[in-house]
Amino acid sequence: MTGTPHVSRRRLLGYVGTTGAGAVAGAGLGAGVVLAADAGNDPPAASAPPAPGRTIEPWGAHQAGVATAPTEVTELVALDLLPDVDRESLGRLMRLWTGDVEALTAGRGAPGDPAPWLSQPAADLTITVGAGPGACRPGLLGPGPTGFAAIPVMRRDRLQDRWSGGDLLVVVAGRDGTTVAHAVRRMVADARPFARLRWRQVGSWSPTDPAGRPQTGRNHFGQVDGSGNPRPGTPLFDSTVWVREGPWAGGSTLAVRRIRMDLDTWEELTRDEQERSVGRRLGDGAPLTGGMEIDDLDLAARAQGRLVVPRDAHSRRAHPSLNGGRRMFRKGVNYTREVETRDGVRVESGLVFLAYQADLLDQFVPVQRSLDEADRLNEWTTTVGSAAFAVLPGFEQGSWLGEQLLG
Amino acid sequence: MTGTPHVSRRRLLGYVGTTGAGAVAGAGLGAGVVLAADAGNDPPAASAPPAPGRTIEPWGAHQAGVATAPTEVTELVALDLLPDVDRESLGRLMRLWTGDVEALTAGRGAPGDPAPWLSQPAADLTITVGAGPGACRPGLLGPGPTGFAAIPVMRRDRLQDRWSGGDLLVVVAGRDGTTVAHAVRRMVADARPFARLRWRQVGSWSPTDPAGRPQTGRNHFGQVDGSGNPRPGTPLFDSTVWVREGPWAGGSTLAVRRIRMDLDTWEELTRDEQERSVGRRLGDGAPLTGGMEIDDLDLAARAQGRLVVPRDAHSRRAHPSLNGGRRMFRKGVNYTREVETRDGVRVESGLVFLAYQADLLDQFVPVQRSLDEADRLNEWTTTVGSAAFAVLPGFEQGSWLGEQLLG
Repeated sequence: MTGTPHVSRRRLLGYVGTTGAGAVAGAGLGAGVVLAADAGNDPPAASAPPAPGRTIEPWGAHQAGVATAPTEVTELVALDLLPDVDRESLGRLMRLWTGDVEALTAGRGAPGDPAPWLSQPAADLTITVGAGPGACRPGLLGPGPTGFAAIPVMRRDRLQDRWSGGDLLVVVAGRDGTTVAHAVRRMVADARPFARLRWRQVGSWSPTDPAGRPQTGRNHFGQVDGSGNPRPGTPLFDSTVWVREGPWAGGSTLAVRRIRMDLDTWEELTRDEQERSVGRRLGDGAPLTGGMEIDDLDLAARAQGRLVVPRDAHSRRAHPSLNGGRRMFRKGVNYTREVETRDGVRVESGLVFLAYQADLLDQFVPVQRSLDEADRLNEWTTTVGSAAFAVLPGFEQGSWLGEQLLG
Repeated sequence: MTGTPHVSRRRLLGYVGTTGAGAVAGAGLGAGVVLAADAGNDPPAASAPPAPGRTIEPWGAHQAGVATAPTEVTELVALDLLPDVDRESLGRLMRLWTGDVEALTAGRGAPGDPAPWLSQPAADLTITVGAGPGACRPGLLGPGPTGFAAIPVMRRDRLQDRWSGGDLLVVVAGRDGTTVAHAVRRMVADARPFARLRWRQVGSWSPTDPAGRPQTGRNHFGQVDGSGNPRPGTPLFDSTVWVREGPWAGGSTLAVRRIRMDLDTWEELTRDEQERSVGRRLGDGAPLTGGMEIDDLDLAARAQGRLVVPRDAHSRRAHPSLNGGRRMFRKGVNYTREVETRDGVRVESGLVFLAYQADLLDQFVPVQRSLDEADRLNEWTTTVGSAAFAVLPGFEQGSWLGEQLLG
């Protein structure tokens, strides 16, 4: 039961639409529609037939893949720079990667690609590049954006090195795992003289409803996840997400948190207990205080003397009004992974939580601390990985990734 | 460059189309189209707009998911029966699973599902159930179909227990990993009193071209993989895939082989070396002897004195004419997986190779032996997992999975 009318939901989300105003891809089979990276402010009519896929241009003030609508598959790889990499060679890697990003997202093979057939246009492919604290230092990229640093370890974190840290990040999103894996492989292969793989995380999402229309999507708990997000293309989104001044202007920061979810104990709860932990209805994501998914929570509402949205409900603890107006743009993906045990194999489920914000220290960290202190969901979730990256500013055709910082 | 006209390729594939003759799903939002499980014989016109997704009915002479068109995501889990499971309790599990299959593929939650919101209609979801040799014995399912047994270990196999064997198999295919993972979780959870997870394999495929039209798809080597397949809905497909007589009539057998692919050394080859190893052109999957992907190889063709399709080329060694007319229906999915090493993380790539045939011993085994002896691709591939399953016959509404065998 999703009660929200589709037009409203679509407007709410404001994601880059499937039939936007861009030109048809010249290189493709006439099927895909080309959209600018940040064309998020003019959602198409809800009656437009869903397109099979889009070719998303990588150029613009911002990298593609942040404001872009979620896709079915997201793969993240973090790399560590080799000891002898300096500013000059990091610039070489960024120029190489720029060529890769331009070719792969257009559906061509990367330069020197031995399997160019694995690239396809209209694959909804975006590639987004970030730099960790280790790369944001003198002699490399210089200082990161204001407030950018490693995320302090939270009290409840149970971090594993295996899922944490990294000097560079590549996020590849698309509609199928084969195309995405090929793009990741090319990016990692081209980085080989400069950096080696540190970790890799793969997740999936269900970004469309049965009619092919954008929907918020759900995490493995069944929660609609991402409802309160600022809408791409709005001033609120821009001020939340993009760095405004200095050499990082047009960039962002990204917190990557790997959150293990204990579905076995979660599923022992009643629906009422689950909904009170979240603060929203499971069926449609609407606040427990009523309305639709797009509506805000009424944090003061009481029924039979008690708060409708409990004090430690996740959506109260994360609410901007209780966090000095602080927001982030969340874009998590669900993961599953088999873990070998003495008795056989167990499937571990969780969320690769991605939060984009202009200022990591001022936005992400305080909200995370508030959740760390008293989020009821903490009982069924454990953060096992944590990493911070500064998302490089966008680049124009003829320019390259990071030119503002390394050029 | 895919030179094959789309209508031809579509006809060739003959997959269950996106706008077939089924009735619109009553329970959905009016978007998905319901198709019978084995409606593979009447492909729609190529000009039909691609539908956002399909609800595929599970009922019929055959289980859904075999003849059904490939999807973006496939997850396979093998389970081992607990020691005290008998015919009666196995029947109970099958009745439970039947309810799960009917609900989940329709986009409803499974009975007792604590997160029914993770089910969606029009998710292209199919669930296919099989039984390993350990379940095909007196006191359980009784003997399997003719020729069904564990796959003999091949000379070049480097099998790991971790990816091999199993008493029961569940194959879940769909368009996004979140919906698929939820269905797998429900099936495994409902099996808990009867069986425990043995292994899990997840793969992806790129089943549509940039216009959203069906395509054969490619493995990680960049090869078009599956070109010579019999076309669902044809007599050749039926005689290749389905068991014809006895209690298993309407069922099939399935070989699951996990094939690691060494992309690093493969990518060192020239394109000519790669194409001569495969016997087909990498660009469009056409035989090296000319024509289009749909055309057969000319195994006698020579150029400058040497065979155009070398003696040990993969597609020659696997060709029905050199294997006594033996065929199988192949439906592999690409996997990637991170492997921790002393120096960090490495991504391993490969193929979860699925071969369906009526008679495992008479069809799959001899062809596999022929490849084991002299397939040039063996140099860059290693089979690390192997398992055989008898695919249960289909079931009608009101009946249940395996009733012919356990009822």
